[in-house]
Amino acid sequence: MLTANAYAAPSATEDLIPTTIERRDVGPHDVLIEIKFAGICHSDIHTVRGEWGPQQYPLAPGHEIAGIATEVGSEVTRHKLGDRVGVGCMVNSCRECANCLKGEEQYCLAGNTGTYGAVDRDGTITQGGYSTHVVVTEDFVVRIPDALELDVAAPLLCAGITTYSPLRHWGAGPGKKIAVVGLGGLGHMAVKIAHAMGAEVTVLSQSLKKMEDGLQLGADHFHATSDAGTFETLAGTFDLIINTVSAPIDISSYLQLLSLDGALVNVGAPAEPLPVNVFSLILGRRSFAGSAIGGIRETQEMLDFCAEHGLGAEIEVIPADRINEAYERVLASDVRYRFVIDTATMK
Amino acid sequence: MLTANAYAAPSATEDLIPTTIERRDVGPHDVLIEIKFAGICHSDIHTVRGEWGPQQYPLAPGHEIAGIATEVGSEVTRHKLGDRVGVGCMVNSCRECANCLKGEEQYCLAGNTGTYGAVDRDGTITQGGYSTHVVVTEDFVVRIPDALELDVAAPLLCAGITTYSPLRHWGAGPGKKIAVVGLGGLGHMAVKIAHAMGAEVTVLSQSLKKMEDGLQLGADHFHATSDAGTFETLAGTFDLIINTVSAPIDISSYLQLLSLDGALVNVGAPAEPLPVNVFSLILGRRSFAGSAIGGIRETQEMLDFCAEHGLGAEIEVIPADRINEAYERVLASDVRYRFVIDTATMK
Repeated sequence: MLTANAYAAPSATEDLIPTTIERRDVGPHDVLIEIKFAGICHSDIHTVRGEWGPQQYPLAPGHEIAGIATEVGSEVTRHKLGDRVGVGCMVNSCRECANCLKGEEQYCLAGNTGTYGAVDRDGTITQGGYSTHVVVTEDFVVRIPDALELDVAAPLLCAGITTYSPLRHWGAGPGKKIAVVGLGGLGHMAVKIAHAMGAEVTVLSQSLKKMEDGLQLGADHFHATSDAGTFETLAGTFDLIINTVSAPIDISSYLQLLSLDGALVNVGAPAEPLPVNVFSLILGRRSFAGSAIGGIRETQEMLDFCAEHGLGAEIEVIPADRINEAYERVLASDVRYRFVIDTATMK
Repeated sequence: MLTANAYAAPSATEDLIPTTIERRDVGPHDVLIEIKFAGICHSDIHTVRGEWGPQQYPLAPGHEIAGIATEVGSEVTRHKLGDRVGVGCMVNSCRECANCLKGEEQYCLAGNTGTYGAVDRDGTITQGGYSTHVVVTEDFVVRIPDALELDVAAPLLCAGITTYSPLRHWGAGPGKKIAVVGLGGLGHMAVKIAHAMGAEVTVLSQSLKKMEDGLQLGADHFHATSDAGTFETLAGTFDLIINTVSAPIDISSYLQLLSLDGALVNVGAPAEPLPVNVFSLILGRRSFAGSAIGGIRETQEMLDFCAEHGLGAEIEVIPADRINEAYERVLASDVRYRFVIDTATMK
């Protein structure tokens, strides 16, 4: 057993506090990672507060992990000592089902093992990246290319892959018109990546407040959804809409913005069902779809793509003792665009 | 002007009665069709009763038309005198928009011209196929192959193409598992066509009442949706679900029946929005989509496919004076599987 420093929530209703957690011994296929940076994802907050179901406490969240491999198991072939590595939203899967065999471990039919708050294959509860160290099986550890700094790379492990995967799957590229709904942690990466893929990118944001940012990130157009005229002007425009907003939006209005065969893809999920006007789907053979993170192979592809195009997240690096304050700011949408914890401050 | 016998509704609340209607003179690009058979589609009933919006009366419905070309305009090249021809749900479109240019006239951005109850390009209101004759521009007239009898071909013009098009678009074929929800006019054609395409076909019907029929039509499996166990047994099974039921169903439960990247496609549209659980979409990258009839080129392709595979609709031929009775039976789901009017009885 290995003891790591961490920030964990003692219960659903308490602030995160400094503590120590146990990491398993490095097995033959494991990699011990000295975590350098961990991103703060909105879902960390939902989970530790028990809003997505009951948890076991103490719980250290964090699934945007970037660090250095400081020990590798005897059978490890994919990584070596000193490698710059990352871990995202899952640390294992069954590896046997049809989806795992396709490299889509995120859709593992037995359920993938979440990076925190999940029952690991050995029966323990996984603990996330708000910590100095983590031990992960090599197949769920990806390589961070040298061209990416570790701090801006950390958020790519969730916000990056969650947007890259549907953009790739639904064919974003030259000649395609893509809209991104919401310019937050996920949205700002969607804009950067879609732009780098060569698509024409439009941001649909509640107001024009972040317009300058959006254009600088790579958007070609920026519209306020609080302006009803937006929905008239843009009717039938987009091949693909990536909706990064987890709060309920009027899906049927957004569907009308799609051209023939267009798809509106939710990467966030509101707790309540969303009413969908079926005529909006039928008139234009449109789709309302969902997408969850991406597989391990695709996560590596995304990191390589981001390195090639010089894409990192826009971040605000914070010391660990500002995590709770950062949570409040995330909830108030007061972050441009991702908090990243410098885990050196946990030592 | 040409006078044709017809059955038309004098108002939204009255039965259809025998009458005469005017057809335009045959223009240089027109085909005069002596209608032999006209199918009764559920949407005929909705439309004449004003349930899908106000109409101008008298209104003769009918958009499943099969007959013989008895006069062709001077410039007509696609059809000749004596040809066996059909007309479906539309008789024109703008022909200039992106969708028309792709051959997807059903999604014409200016709105296609419906076969009845629509404002025609010349400003008149179109009158449908419950009639002895109709004049249609040659580009919206399709050829009915000799291998298909006209009576069983008529319903293909709506029920056939409405199911063929999404089956083709979403890749039904060998190795694919397809479910068809509802075994009515559309559903029975979906089963026949999907089976002929080589897919493994499952019918999801409210009860097992039509099981024998379903299997005979080509289904490999038949399940009752009133049995909650069906949704457990079949979770994650299908690549494609064609929902032919216009009444609201619990879409989220059906989405759970899809495998990775599966699509649930509505070809009917309930008036009320349907609540969709977004997690059902995200977990499996599933899509909820819609599809409307098919383009003219694809309608011809569908007729040729049906001829090649010996697929006609299962029909009950009726004389015109039983149309009103047939309407009541359609509403009571008491038809296996399509009423077809013998228009010789209108003379």
